[in-house]
Amino acid sequence: MRTVYVIGIGSGDPDHLTLSAVKALQAVDAVFVIDKGEAKEDLVALRTEILHRHREPGTYRVVEAADPVRDRAAGAGENGRSATYAAAVVEWQDQRGALYASMIDSLGPDETGAFLVWGDPALYDGTLRLLEGLDVHVVSVPGISSVQALAAAHRLILNRVGRPVLITTGRRLAAGMPADVDDVVVMLDGGTAFASLPDEEMADVDVYWGAYVGGPDEILAAGPVLEVRDEIVRRRAEARARKGWIMDTYLLRRRPADR
Amino acid sequence: MRTVYVIGIGSGDPDHLTLSAVKALQAVDAVFVIDKGEAKEDLVALRTEILHRHREPGTYRVVEAADPVRDRAAGAGENGRSATYAAAVVEWQDQRGALYASMIDSLGPDETGAFLVWGDPALYDGTLRLLEGLDVHVVSVPGISSVQALAAAHRLILNRVGRPVLITTGRRLAAGMPADVDDVVVMLDGGTAFASLPDEEMADVDVYWGAYVGGPDEILAAGPVLEVRDEIVRRRAEARARKGWIMDTYLLRRRPADR
Repeated sequence: MRTVYVIGIGSGDPDHLTLSAVKALQAVDAVFVIDKGEAKEDLVALRTEILHRHREPGTYRVVEAADPVRDRAAGAGENGRSATYAAAVVEWQDQRGALYASMIDSLGPDETGAFLVWGDPALYDGTLRLLEGLDVHVVSVPGISSVQALAAAHRLILNRVGRPVLITTGRRLAAGMPADVDDVVVMLDGGTAFASLPDEEMADVDVYWGAYVGGPDEILAAGPVLEVRDEIVRRRAEARARKGWIMDTYLLRRRPADR
Repeated sequence: MRTVYVIGIGSGDPDHLTLSAVKALQAVDAVFVIDKGEAKEDLVALRTEILHRHREPGTYRVVEAADPVRDRAAGAGENGRSATYAAAVVEWQDQRGALYASMIDSLGPDETGAFLVWGDPALYDGTLRLLEGLDVHVVSVPGISSVQALAAAHRLILNRVGRPVLITTGRRLAAGMPADVDDVVVMLDGGTAFASLPDEEMADVDVYWGAYVGGPDEILAAGPVLEVRDEIVRRRAEARARKGWIMDTYLLRRRPADR
């Protein structure tokens, strides 16, 4: 059976690649690249740099395909439980599934290939799901996620002693800061959901925010939400306008009650 | 100011080290090693192997100290919110803080040092907290946590589309499977808390379990909790008796309701 590696390559720092990832990258015959459009050309550049660092040109094939266009309008403004949103994601995943199957079909019978994915294949990435059910041996190679890069940049421990951490999405957070968890990591936030939550809900919450974390354009900001949210909204909008895309992540941390 | 790296070295596979971690390891004058007792000699062996792979003998110092003994009995059986438990952890952290400060004091004025920590310094590790307030420049180098190694071994995506993931402790889980999150990662479980929860609570929950994940003695098991829990409890007890220690992690995943 053909082997396909799903390799987490980190979120911006080429040195966040693990030795396992380097070995897998060096072993494969083909690298599958999904083109997500010009807006994220820095990400393409990082991927290219990683390939150039670890492979000699001409020793492997790059199999490229364009990402199916996703209907991002569907379910917008809802909190992610929406059936419309889920259906749009599922349809898009189906199209990607067919695409991935055809890329893998380009492998010879004894060849191996690799999908390079941002962050960690285990966190908010659909590649492993898309490969389920295909006649292929899948190896998942973990990578440093943007959450970990964010934590490292702020020298954060995500949990507090003996306490939990929730990893959630911007859509979900828009419904409110969870009452029963005091440390919430937000990924996939198309806006700045935390900045739109009511003052009374955010009065005892600090934010640790980062964009392009681990990369040369890294931007960090931290402080009480009510004090720094306007600055973060402004800097995020400026950065997005300047670069044409943004990838950001943040931790919301409720301060202990004064008792 | 002296620089101290806190380097995540993964949870069992020496190839889970990142290139950043290798570079940091190769740059330091001293490596600080906390001896946690003979029971975890495999972990000491892994750390030694990592050092031998990436440094020439005689080019760096190893500064060893014994870990303060923690009062693990305090607050046992409670759910982690207990003041007794928190106080025991804090006292133990204070003793470690003094120890870490004295280790750092062994550095010359222009020297750098490194603490090697299991997994990722950002997840259930206290080293960064212990270094707060010391007169030292701290660099956090992320590592592959046991959660990520578990996910890779089972080829899991931890979240489902657009949905959250809770990372929590065995103590907390003992109070019950959270009602509002369907994907729960459990770390630091001194027993098998999931196996003691009521049948009706676990009837629609699958478990993906792993011990010594990423290492040569890796054990994996997965399936509906009610079907596999006895097997996991048995295999865990056997492995712990055989090796003298165990490090395990698991994901609990509630199955979608039949609708």
